[in-house]
Amino acid sequence: MNLKQFIDENLPKLDEVLYELVRTIKAPAQLKESMLYSLEAGGKRIRPLFVLAVCDLFHNKKNEAYVVGAAVEMIHTYSLIHDDLPSMDNDDMRRGKPTNHVIFGDALATLAGDALNTLSFGVLARMENVSSEKKIELINLLSVAAGAEGMVGGQVLDIDGENRSLSLPELENVHINKTGALLRFSIESGAILSDATTEERSALVEYAHHIGLAFQIQDDILDIVGTTEELGKTAGKDVESHKSTYPALLTLEGAKQKLEEHYDYAITALRKIDKNTAILEEFAQYIVKRHN
Amino acid sequence: MNLKQFIDENLPKLDEVLYELVRTIKAPAQLKESMLYSLEAGGKRIRPLFVLAVCDLFHNKKNEAYVVGAAVEMIHTYSLIHDDLPSMDNDDMRRGKPTNHVIFGDALATLAGDALNTLSFGVLARMENVSSEKKIELINLLSVAAGAEGMVGGQVLDIDGENRSLSLPELENVHINKTGALLRFSIESGAILSDATTEERSALVEYAHHIGLAFQIQDDILDIVGTTEELGKTAGKDVESHKSTYPALLTLEGAKQKLEEHYDYAITALRKIDKNTAILEEFAQYIVKRHN
Repeated sequence: MNLKQFIDENLPKLDEVLYELVRTIKAPAQLKESMLYSLEAGGKRIRPLFVLAVCDLFHNKKNEAYVVGAAVEMIHTYSLIHDDLPSMDNDDMRRGKPTNHVIFGDALATLAGDALNTLSFGVLARMENVSSEKKIELINLLSVAAGAEGMVGGQVLDIDGENRSLSLPELENVHINKTGALLRFSIESGAILSDATTEERSALVEYAHHIGLAFQIQDDILDIVGTTEELGKTAGKDVESHKSTYPALLTLEGAKQKLEEHYDYAITALRKIDKNTAILEEFAQYIVKRHN
Repeated sequence: MNLKQFIDENLPKLDEVLYELVRTIKAPAQLKESMLYSLEAGGKRIRPLFVLAVCDLFHNKKNEAYVVGAAVEMIHTYSLIHDDLPSMDNDDMRRGKPTNHVIFGDALATLAGDALNTLSFGVLARMENVSSEKKIELINLLSVAAGAEGMVGGQVLDIDGENRSLSLPELENVHINKTGALLRFSIESGAILSDATTEERSALVEYAHHIGLAFQIQDDILDIVGTTEELGKTAGKDVESHKSTYPALLTLEGAKQKLEEHYDYAITALRKIDKNTAILEEFAQYIVKRHN
C-alpha cells in the first residue's frame, strides 16, 4: 500500500469520527455550526494521519487511533481559529475559504476555539478500549504539547519574534513548539496506543522532531515559491512583513538544503525500527515535496 | 470552625499551589506573566473553596483538593480573560484592576486564556495519589462542565440572549451552563475525591444546582443595588444594556424571593447528608448575602 491508498482508505472514516464527536454534543446550534465549519474547511489531516500511520506500523489499535486523531485535529483547528482572529494574524482566508470569525464574528469564533480545545480532552477521557493509565498518559502529553510549554508557547515566541531578527536556534525553538509539539504528540500517541517498545518510541520521536522542522521549512519556502491559489492563503506574506524565516536566514537555497537534511535524519530514524515503515517514509517525502 | 476560619486556613495554601503550578512550567516569560496576572488579580476562589469544603466534610483527600481547586480556578480565570476581550464584553476593569488585555494586549490575553484552559487538564492528569480511573472521571466531567456542553455553551446562549428578552426557563438555562456547570464540577469533584456515596454525591449535586442559580441571582441583584466601588466592576451595566436578568423578569423583590427559595432548597439538600455540613451551609449563606 502506498501513502495515497492509505489516505484514501482512512480519511473518510477519520472525518466521520471527527464530525460525529462534535455533532453528538448537547450544545447551542450556532456554536456547533461554528466548530464544524472550521473542522470541515478542508484541512489535510496531517496530524491524525500520523496517529493512524504509526498505529498501522504496529497493526494495532485502529479504532482508537481515529479518536486520538480527532482530538489532535480539534486542537489544531482551534489554534487556527484563534490565530486568524483580527487581534492575532488577522487572516480573512484559510484553505481558500473565509475564516471562522469572518462568518461567525469574533466572539463566537473565540468561543468555538475554546470549546474545541476543551472537547479534545473529554474525547480522550471518554475513549473506549484504552486503559485509564494510557488515557492519562495521552492527556498529560497533549496538555503539554498544546499548551504554554508547547504550541501556545510557540505562538507567543512567534509573535514576539515578529518585530526583530531571530537567530537560527531561536527560530528553531519557535517551530519546535509552535508546530513541532503537536506533530510529535500525533506520532508519539500512535506509539503509546500501539504498545511500541521504548526504542521504537524514541526512534519515532526522533522522526517526529525532524518531520516537524522539515514541515515548517517547507511552509516558509512555499510562502516564497507558492501562489496564493495553490496555498489557499495569501502567499508572500512573510517576505512582506520581514518575518524571520528559514529562507530569510539561510537564503532559499540554504533553506532547501536544510529541508533535505531534516528529511534524511527523519528517514535514518525510521531505519532503527524493524518494521515496514514505507508509509511513514512516503509521508516524510510528502512533507518536503508538498505544494500547499 | 466557621467559614471565615475555614477560608483563612485554606486560602494561602490554595494560592501557593495555584501559583506554583504555573510558575514551574517551562514557557515564555511574558506568557507566564500574563497567566499569573489574572490568577493573582484577587478572585474570591469560590470554586476551589467548594472543592475543599466538600473534601473537608468527608475528612478526605486534602492535598489533592488543592490541585483540583487550582485546575477549576484556571478554567474560571481563562473564561474571564476571554469574556473581557474587546470582541466579547469589552471590559477594561475586573476585580478593581485593569483586565488582562489592557495590560498585555489582545493577542497575548487570548493565548494566556488558551494556555490556562489547556493547563488545567494537564494538572489533573499529573495529580499524585489519585487513581487513574478517578482522574479520568474528573477530566471527563471538567471537559463537559467547561466546554460547549457547559460554560462555553452558556456563554454563547448569553451573547445570543443580549438582543432579545429571554423567558425565565431560558434565563435559567443560560446560568445553569454559564456559571452553574463549573460550580457543580467544583462540588462534585470534591465528592469524587472523597469517595462520597451515591446518595451523598447526588445531594451535593442538588445543593450545587441551587447554589449556582442563587449565585447568579445575587449577581443580577448586585448589579442594581451595588456600587462600582463595592463590585470592582461597573455597576448598573445590565440595566443600561436592557439585559435579561432575574430582577428584569421578576422585579427586584421577586428576584430576592427567588434567591431565598434556592437558598432553602440548597440547605434542604444538605440535610440529606449525615455529616456536619456547617461550612457548606454558611457558604450558601455567604453566596446569597455577599456584596461583591
